[in-house]
Amino acid sequence: MNTIERIMDRHCYRGEYLSDCLPTREELKIIMEAGMAAPSGCNKQTTSFVAVDDPILVARIKAVLNPPLARTAPVFLCVLTQRIPALRNICYAVQDYSAAIENMLLAIAELGYQSCWYEGQITDEKRVCDKIAEILELPSGYEVVCLLPVGKAKDEVRGPKKKTFEERAWFNRLGVEDRT
Amino acid sequence: MNTIERIMDRHCYRGEYLSDCLPTREELKIIMEAGMAAPSGCNKQTTSFVAVDDPILVARIKAVLNPPLARTAPVFLCVLTQRIPALRNICYAVQDYSAAIENMLLAIAELGYQSCWYEGQITDEKRVCDKIAEILELPSGYEVVCLLPVGKAKDEVRGPKKKTFEERAWFNRLGVEDRT
Repeated sequence: MNTIERIMDRHCYRGEYLSDCLPTREELKIIMEAGMAAPSGCNKQTTSFVAVDDPILVARIKAVLNPPLARTAPVFLCVLTQRIPALRNICYAVQDYSAAIENMLLAIAELGYQSCWYEGQITDEKRVCDKIAEILELPSGYEVVCLLPVGKAKDEVRGPKKKTFEERAWFNRLGVEDRT
Repeated sequence: MNTIERIMDRHCYRGEYLSDCLPTREELKIIMEAGMAAPSGCNKQTTSFVAVDDPILVARIKAVLNPPLARTAPVFLCVLTQRIPALRNICYAVQDYSAAIENMLLAIAELGYQSCWYEGQITDEKRVCDKIAEILELPSGYEVVCLLPVGKAKDEVRGPKKKTFEERAWFNRLGVEDRT
């Protein structure tokens, strides 16, 4: 499968994970390196990563997830950001971590695992992200913005229903099939 | 090259483009489909795309870029967003378009072309993005947030200097090489 096929084939997975199929440290390192390879505004590299494969820490993170998420995930990748301004005091941290997350989702799928982008569920007014930061004993300046489970899917992986090409993409003028 | 190799190999390119090597419509469609395949918060699909390969429109866009950018680019992909709130009135449009852009950058590289993520240069206080929206005659509700040139590189493609793995990624505890 080449990169374009991988991009088209990848979907977020919300089913159960097999309990006996953990990614190795080497695989988790490759996934985090894929995240690091994403571009960042003014090369500020605002995104960092903590792979949590210690079963005690995984259980402590699951205990604070409200509502419960990824209950059978064997491993979590925690995506961290530092809100460092780039040029002219504008901060591109959201763009930076989103590109890094997409790279990691693709790398996870390439290695035969599944994942899901859990962001709103941990960064909303309940601030579960702060509890995860406490569990990980993060130094100040680092925020947890996303949780990616990593594991082998037990169930079928299915994509969401999406709009058609004609509803989202055009040549030269929006809404017109072909202008030139 | 598999997906992980592609991710590690891709870099933003700020050099000149060859004038006689244009991506085809079919290739531009594949690149935009890769953008559409990115996940989006609550599947709101807030990102849309206009591929500009009409030389008159390409020239008009170049004329409003200030400072000048991608002067030799034969084609532009314009990334558009609609700021549609997802769950609980929070909008994930930035995350959505950033994941879509990363997919497109990978697809562009996979097809043998180069590109660069131009966002801050068009969305800053000079609001070049609004001038591009005018040129494209975008309906209200759509904003131009990023410009991706697409073309064959004339110069060498080189990546920026990046922090090491140990400075950005850890297992179980930030700053500790191996906790378990």
